[in-house]
Amino acid sequence: MTVATIDVSRLGQRLDALAEIGRIDGPNGEWGNARLALTDEDRAGRDLVVDWMRALDLDVTIDRIGNIVGVRAGRGADLAPVMTGSHIDTVGTGGRFDGTLGVLAGLEVIEALNDADIVTERPLAVAVFTDEEGSRFPPDMLGSLVYAGGMPLEAALAIEAVDNQATIGDELGRIGYAGPGPCPPLQPPHAFVELHIEQGPVLEAEGIEIGVVTDVQGISWTEVSIVGRSAHAGTTPMAMRRDPGFAAGAIATFVRDLTRRIGPPLVATVGRVELVPNLVNVVPARATLTVDMRHTDDAQLAAADALLTTYLEELAVAEQVEIATRSLASFGSVRFDPSMVERIASSAERLGYSHRRMVSGAGHDAQMLARICPSSMIFVPSVDGLSHNIAEYTKPEHLEAGTAVLLDVLLDLASM
Amino acid sequence: MTVATIDVSRLGQRLDALAEIGRIDGPNGEWGNARLALTDEDRAGRDLVVDWMRALDLDVTIDRIGNIVGVRAGRGADLAPVMTGSHIDTVGTGGRFDGTLGVLAGLEVIEALNDADIVTERPLAVAVFTDEEGSRFPPDMLGSLVYAGGMPLEAALAIEAVDNQATIGDELGRIGYAGPGPCPPLQPPHAFVELHIEQGPVLEAEGIEIGVVTDVQGISWTEVSIVGRSAHAGTTPMAMRRDPGFAAGAIATFVRDLTRRIGPPLVATVGRVELVPNLVNVVPARATLTVDMRHTDDAQLAAADALLTTYLEELAVAEQVEIATRSLASFGSVRFDPSMVERIASSAERLGYSHRRMVSGAGHDAQMLARICPSSMIFVPSVDGLSHNIAEYTKPEHLEAGTAVLLDVLLDLASM
Repeated sequence: MTVATIDVSRLGQRLDALAEIGRIDGPNGEWGNARLALTDEDRAGRDLVVDWMRALDLDVTIDRIGNIVGVRAGRGADLAPVMTGSHIDTVGTGGRFDGTLGVLAGLEVIEALNDADIVTERPLAVAVFTDEEGSRFPPDMLGSLVYAGGMPLEAALAIEAVDNQATIGDELGRIGYAGPGPCPPLQPPHAFVELHIEQGPVLEAEGIEIGVVTDVQGISWTEVSIVGRSAHAGTTPMAMRRDPGFAAGAIATFVRDLTRRIGPPLVATVGRVELVPNLVNVVPARATLTVDMRHTDDAQLAAADALLTTYLEELAVAEQVEIATRSLASFGSVRFDPSMVERIASSAERLGYSHRRMVSGAGHDAQMLARICPSSMIFVPSVDGLSHNIAEYTKPEHLEAGTAVLLDVLLDLASM
Repeated sequence: MTVATIDVSRLGQRLDALAEIGRIDGPNGEWGNARLALTDEDRAGRDLVVDWMRALDLDVTIDRIGNIVGVRAGRGADLAPVMTGSHIDTVGTGGRFDGTLGVLAGLEVIEALNDADIVTERPLAVAVFTDEEGSRFPPDMLGSLVYAGGMPLEAALAIEAVDNQATIGDELGRIGYAGPGPCPPLQPPHAFVELHIEQGPVLEAEGIEIGVVTDVQGISWTEVSIVGRSAHAGTTPMAMRRDPGFAAGAIATFVRDLTRRIGPPLVATVGRVELVPNLVNVVPARATLTVDMRHTDDAQLAAADALLTTYLEELAVAEQVEIATRSLASFGSVRFDPSMVERIASSAERLGYSHRRMVSGAGHDAQMLARICPSSMIFVPSVDGLSHNIAEYTKPEHLEAGTAVLLDVLLDLASM
């Protein structure tokens, strides 16, 4: 039996060809993608991937939420397939690797197996999940959420675009991807493995080639609205102020302190602040800000949220402002199947790649698949930790390393 | 000799008539003014005030920066006049009292003296200073600054509008207010008294009718620009962040602490904050904010600025961000002539009005006049401390109280 071998230049060609659809060019030669879910660009990208799947002799089905699954037959025809995959939709100013790597590395694995005439015991499936980013149709990870039974199909089809111009159902029909396949599927996968770029700086900073993902952090997004009293910055004594601008700053400072108090892996970010009227010499009337907090331990995340709530109550009294909060997102953490995690670590070890276990700070389709089958993820380094940015980049040697580990793990899983 | 008496309804009619020019109506019956310096609305307002001055038999002159001075003769023809006045230009969403009260109360004093056939020893002058707000042509207090010799006339005439569409010289010519009078004047006033709304909450909160202004605070505006590194809020460990959003919050917190450390009358405000890209799940790449600090003691204000500078240097190192600062404004404090302050306090006392000495947090024409003659100011309460807002309001009884004190002080000063 020939040994299956990853051809990274072939993978790179597919990455480039797909990235030409919805291409965005930056000022310094960097380029990325705008391929929002269920737009004409998404349709063109889907058509290209389906063409590639068919050229690789995969049996392609589209389900009712538009997920695309290409299956390569195994010897055991009735066995549940081992699945890999990810998504090909992007954010508005996205990169060329986020999601697409997981799909196209799956195709590269298939092509390597075809070239080597290797037939696995279990079927292998490559999935393209609909609307992972959620930029046009919130929430994110939608296609895999419905696939895993986490949201009723009809509810998902009725979701409106952020511009209220169409529903998911409308747009699936329009672009020709309202498939006939049942969703959730009749038979869940035997296992799911997703290759993805890290989207963070850890692997690069530590000079490590492969991240073995053990958990996905839980996430809590809170919007904080503060109403105080607009006043003249020169004529209003400090003791008579009700200053939402100060309160916003105090919250950002508190949130940072909270990460020190609770410690890693808690991360917390105040990424958005808006003051009204936002003038140099006016104490603001209002402020709005967001707090993004994530932790692998749901109890610790809830504790952080509770401490924030208590602080906001104290601050409202101390500054005599009104503070209201609204949850923008709340997902529990996900712990991947330990044996799946171990398989990835063993593959990386066997293939001679430096590796470390790590937590995913971002959400991924694999966390939804983890609800219905043993799942895990392989991370490869992101240059400068950049993602959701047209300068997003992963070096060819890391694309190759990740795809080689994926091939090895899929072969292992499909062998029994 | 008849006693001169203020007619507050006559004053109110003039305030209303002037405020019809450039009127802005709010949603709840409140109304204010947009009468930016040297616009058609400013011309119409000037024309109306000049008509009133002539109807009151004042000798009206326009100087080369467009300041309008109406003089009522005294017995001593060669004596320097006692001057009152303020401005009639407004900010873009201004009120009906800021500035206009000082001018129209001056006219009310003149009319009350005319009605009572009172002739003073010294001439009395009512001045309308050009471009006090500086909203269209920075800096603020421009007409009085040139009048007091603080800026060469030619430099002032060359100042461009914020939209770069015209210079002050152009617009003075266009609206017919490029007068022939020398500026600075050949003879400075004997003394200057300005009646103005407080524009702050202190008098109303304490239930006091008259503010006796002792000082105008020094002012320092600093724009702080912070450059960090944009990063994914989920995937970037706290220790690897260079977060301008946190830094902005920390600065707002520091500035508040500074007001506690140095104590009153230091006031400090972070009124403007802008984050880029300002998204819930992205550590910002950049932040810009402003710090407005004011103190009556220039040394204390300089000390506050120095402490801020030191803090910014420490913060830049701690957070590994680049912090640059730019001074947007810097004016030293002004201490009004003690005997002038005492005259106002005595008048208020004699007339039976509750009064307190206080510092002006805002800049006023009187601080420029203080460079060339003994000067002081009378404040009256602002409802809710509002100003630079179409809801700006001062009650009729306070308009009357302020104008009565103004009459009394002007008579006193003009008697010798």
